Amino acid sequence: MENKFYKRRVAYYETDCMRIVHHSNYFRYFEEARINFMHNIGCDVKEMENLGLIIPNVDAYARYKQPIEFSDEIIIEVKFTEFNGSKMNFEYIIKFADTDKVAATGHTTHCFVNREMKPISIKRTFPDIYRKLTENLSA
Amino acid sequence: MENKFYKRRVAYYETDCMRIVHHSNYFRYFEEARINFMHNIGCDVKEMENLGLIIPNVDAYARYKQPIEFSDEIIIEVKFTEFNGSKMNFEYIIKFADTDKVAATGHTTHCFVNREMKPISIKRTFPDIYRKLTENLSA
Amino acid sequence: MENKFYKRRVAYYETDCMRIVHHSNYFRYFEEARINFMHNIGCDVKEMENLGLIIPNVDAYARYKQPIEFSDEIIIEVKFTEFNGSKMNFEYIIKFADTDKVAATGHTTHCFVNREMKPISIKRTFPDIYRKLTENLSA
Amino acid sequence: MENKFYKRRVAYYETDCMRIVHHSNYFRYFEEARINFMHNIGCDVKEMENLGLIIPNVDAYARYKQPIEFSDEIIIEVKFTEFNGSKMNFEYIIKFADTDKVAATGHTTHCFVNREMKPISIKRTFPDIYRKLTENLSA
Repeated sequence: MENKFYKRRVAYYETDCMRIVHHSNYFRYFEEARINFMHNIGCDVKEMENLGLIIPNVDAYARYKQPIEFSDEIIIEVKFTEFNGSKMNFEYIIKFADTDKVAATGHTTHCFVNREMKPISIKRTFPDIYRKLTENLSA
Repeated sequence: MENKFYKRRVAYYETDCMRIVHHSNYFRYFEEARINFMHNIGCDVKEMENLGLIIPNVDAYARYKQPIEFSDEIIIEVKFTEFNGSKMNFEYIIKFADTDKVAATGHTTHCFVNREMKPISIKRTFPDIYRKLTENLSA
Repeated sequence: MENKFYKRRVAYYETDCMRIVHHSNYFRYFEEARINFMHNIGCDVKEMENLGLIIPNVDAYARYKQPIEFSDEIIIEVKFTEFNGSKMNFEYIIKFADTDKVAATGHTTHCFVNREMKPISIKRTFPDIYRKLTENLSA
Repeated sequence: MENKFYKRRVAYYETDCMRIVHHSNYFRYFEEARINFMHNIGCDVKEMENLGLIIPNVDAYARYKQPIEFSDEIIIEVKFTEFNGSKMNFEYIIKFADTDKVAATGHTTHCFVNREMKPISIKRTFPDIYRKLTENLSA
């Protein structure tokens, strides 16, 4: 299936005294893009949380290639690369909107838990979400 | 009663591309100092939340006098200035630890709600907390 | 002159364990809306900074009326209420995009300094910016 | 050489609506601990920046094992694992102060650049810092 794109402009408060976006904020950009992607495929994160399905990070990685500055417009591409019912993986590429140059890449892994942070079988408990995720996995 | 002091060093990620602490972070410093003060007077915020007593902000104000930089050590003084059972007020002074110069001042107002964000009478529901707050109000 | 509107969706990382947007983030929303407004009237903040004109906060205030949750779409209205060449004031109203209900209000004051954080006369040094600001003051 | 430890309490604003510390904040904890370690070995980050030596992230990774909550006291252990004059690596372990249980692990890579973000030879330009870093590499 096709990859998804999420565009946004860098806020002033996201920079640090190096005059570039603080490296921790890339994980927030990844999250925004991932949540937007999830919504687009019919798996709205807020709705899932209201149903008791929570999706915490298992790990997170970013590789910084070009510094991003305040006011830069960036595009975050999300690839949904793995899903086996108990975990899922996403890959990300951040590009500058004007030049298409890569600013950073990264990936995150997530699991499925209930409100008490206990792992749950999404296939059994949320078959509809399981199906949508399976269908939207990157080819 | 005596005022309370909370010391901390400014983190790198708290600065912005103006090379000083972003103005929004002062409200986080106020909060850290206030939560530390509450703990010191026997009103631990986490314990209160576990009991179902939530204390959101009603308002917040900061006045910026001297820029604060990465690695500066600051002291936040908390004054608990008003409490009437349904609202409470705090005043703050942020000083540089080395020079005692004022960097900023501010104040916040808070109310008491339950987990559904409905106002509650703390005097009736949490008399022990009501008593501790009353006793620790600034003279 | 007409007021300006800035729309955005609340990110997951902007909430806290009260399950609502952390009160410090409202000042970041104000900033995003203000920077967007400045850009719209031809006073791009990044360009001004590149010219050596820095616009720090002198104060900031927010009043919280209704909690905002993850994924809520909000509209921040900016009113440019005062400008005298050495300081300027903005007022803000945050509304829920779907109901038009007010979530919060606030205001900020700003001054004009150079890269060494010394006050500068914008009328003399940046007459073009001075003129644009004067023209776009709220009636 | 011995590893270094950095202790701190989790702030309210560092949690998200999952009621745990947002995953992006672990990179801020890593940074605080790393900057504290650098200071301890005589390589103060602020002093180095004032000399024109900037140390951005090349990459960053975190693995989340146990959720961390508001008010938890955590200890971040820093291991300085690699340094070759142009890059350096750190490894991190975050533990709960009360139980010594591991909450997360991670690592970051950094390079050395000047104020224009161009790579610099630290061995030639800053021999004293080069020496201190070499001496403090983990065995």
